[in-house]
Amino acid sequence: MKEDDFIVTPWEVRGEIDYDRLVQKFGTSYITDDLLKRIPDYRENIFLRRKIFYSHRDLNYILDRFEKGQEFYLYTGRGPSSGTHLGHMIPWIFTKTLQDAFGVPLIFQMTDDEKFLFKEGLDLSDTAQATLDNMMDIIALGFDPRKTKIIIDTRDIQYLYRIALRVAKHVTFSTAKAVFGFSNSNNIGSIFYTSIQSAPAFLLSEMKGRDFPCLIPCGIDQDPHFRVTRDVAPVLGYPKPALIHGKMLPGLSGGKMSSSGQAALYTTDSNREIERKVMNAFTGGRATVEEQRKLGANPDICPVYYHYEFLLEESDERLKKIYEDCRSGAMLCGECKQMLISKAIPFMERHKEKREKARDKIEDFRFTPEAF
Amino acid sequence: MKEDDFIVTPWEVRGEIDYDRLVQKFGTSYITDDLLKRIPDYRENIFLRRKIFYSHRDLNYILDRFEKGQEFYLYTGRGPSSGTHLGHMIPWIFTKTLQDAFGVPLIFQMTDDEKFLFKEGLDLSDTAQATLDNMMDIIALGFDPRKTKIIIDTRDIQYLYRIALRVAKHVTFSTAKAVFGFSNSNNIGSIFYTSIQSAPAFLLSEMKGRDFPCLIPCGIDQDPHFRVTRDVAPVLGYPKPALIHGKMLPGLSGGKMSSSGQAALYTTDSNREIERKVMNAFTGGRATVEEQRKLGANPDICPVYYHYEFLLEESDERLKKIYEDCRSGAMLCGECKQMLISKAIPFMERHKEKREKARDKIEDFRFTPEAF
Repeated sequence: MKEDDFIVTPWEVRGEIDYDRLVQKFGTSYITDDLLKRIPDYRENIFLRRKIFYSHRDLNYILDRFEKGQEFYLYTGRGPSSGTHLGHMIPWIFTKTLQDAFGVPLIFQMTDDEKFLFKEGLDLSDTAQATLDNMMDIIALGFDPRKTKIIIDTRDIQYLYRIALRVAKHVTFSTAKAVFGFSNSNNIGSIFYTSIQSAPAFLLSEMKGRDFPCLIPCGIDQDPHFRVTRDVAPVLGYPKPALIHGKMLPGLSGGKMSSSGQAALYTTDSNREIERKVMNAFTGGRATVEEQRKLGANPDICPVYYHYEFLLEESDERLKKIYEDCRSGAMLCGECKQMLISKAIPFMERHKEKREKARDKIEDFRFTPEAF
Repeated sequence: MKEDDFIVTPWEVRGEIDYDRLVQKFGTSYITDDLLKRIPDYRENIFLRRKIFYSHRDLNYILDRFEKGQEFYLYTGRGPSSGTHLGHMIPWIFTKTLQDAFGVPLIFQMTDDEKFLFKEGLDLSDTAQATLDNMMDIIALGFDPRKTKIIIDTRDIQYLYRIALRVAKHVTFSTAKAVFGFSNSNNIGSIFYTSIQSAPAFLLSEMKGRDFPCLIPCGIDQDPHFRVTRDVAPVLGYPKPALIHGKMLPGLSGGKMSSSGQAALYTTDSNREIERKVMNAFTGGRATVEEQRKLGANPDICPVYYHYEFLLEESDERLKKIYEDCRSGAMLCGECKQMLISKAIPFMERHKEKREKARDKIEDFRFTPEAF
């Protein structure tokens, strides 16, 4: 790892991610200010105005359609795992803001097959439980069930399989190897899997029998899947999916600004656990109070700061103050952590309430061919 | 191809097949006379008594169960392609005789996904038509719809996918490469596919929640798939499927005793076409009538003879006479062909009648979780 000191694949995010380098490497485009302005209510959208979602493919094409009143939909997904933390929720909350802005349908894919295939020691009963759990967190975010349908791969495979076969026929092992870094020791399910993640991108075109493109909000780590999807789209006669890529919320354990690891705030954490995790978080602070007062700390490498930026501090003004007070040494890490706790706990309490109510709504989100 | 002058894989059968060599190579066992005697009505079964179905894996285990009154089922399949010829029907007719002998359920898998993935230029609409067509030929053979259910992979994938995932997780690309001869240029669907062919072998065990093994009658070319199935069975906690392997009816074009090629008798052929194909068939005959009268001909390399042996001559006595009259030169090829035509045409006419009636029965054979 000379050139890049980080790894970003759909299954592994490691090292200090250079998001500009990823734009180059993956060949995506930055969301320019001109593009940004074409998204309704972008000023109220912290993910857009703070460039947390910062990169795209063909977003302009979707905005052209939107401006002409032409149909499109949103598609995003979740590889269900036990527990949902704030890092998982960022792209979902962002997707909700986009759905509100555009007023379009959303397909949410639960890729339980993927989790099962890629994770050693996991059974389908484990992924089934995680799927149910995660769906409660998704539904709790307030998606409209009339416009939002959730596909669970193993439950709803009948809607995906034929499209997945068409995709798979045009993807060789060589391609999958190059895109995902597979080797001969990968299992044959994991090799096939990307076809299943492609399928929802073509589902409404297939079902409606006309061009019905989608916009996919996702972490930029998922881009490789959709490069494959986009490559086969014209061969299959479907429109290419557009993408809007986000950065990943760093985990609280920090050190390396890696994926949200074990030290993350889960939606099932008690207030005490949230407090403990934040208090134990890695920060951009100095070794001693004296030093920090004198030299200031570094918010750019601080997961506590990113928790404000990505989600917990709505006000840009207040966010700026946090940044500056950190830089100047006016605010110490303890104080900053206390403030984060005072924001995280009510956020989670509200979420937990909505999460409990979501349990009874799950069936309303079931995908059917008549859904949209 | 020094050692073996033939190729037998699930997708390619080429050269003069040495069926004894296949038993060695695949590591299967011959069906011994002792085993044979344990199959009810084996004397009435031309496929068994003529050793057309000649090899097996764990048939003894299935017979043990049968003798103890323990449950098992039959599972066979068809990669739907346009048109059904006699060569295709041999294992189906044999499966029917086994079902009659044992009185057990049968799952019949239509692997339309396989055909689509492995054949260039084929679309899913083509395979859908072929599936319907082929199902009429299958149903025409008289299977009891209460005991026989047909699974169409793309239609019924929801019953197979979870099992297929479990299988796939335990099969690496290395293994698939070794077993099927795949390369990096294979498409990722074809690499995954064997998992789908494994699934019906575990389906009743999975659905019933108890050991419910199956016996798979199939052409020996399909053995590689089920070697994979058998290898993963214990890991997944399912009983290994048993197998009973058949030889392949040679095509009429002959030369090499290869797979039933283009010169085969299709169930949609007119009487004239049947006549023309048989009259044009390759035989084991001599260059001139004089030579043949003097030296006799060779039934062992003659597809016309094999059409008698495999299907169209029920009587062993008459079959023996055909063989001997060919060997001695008493019967010339023209006469032998005329006789075959006089058997093939009524066989096909009866089949066509039943085939037409099958059209309305298709739904009766639809697999459902309550099927057995």
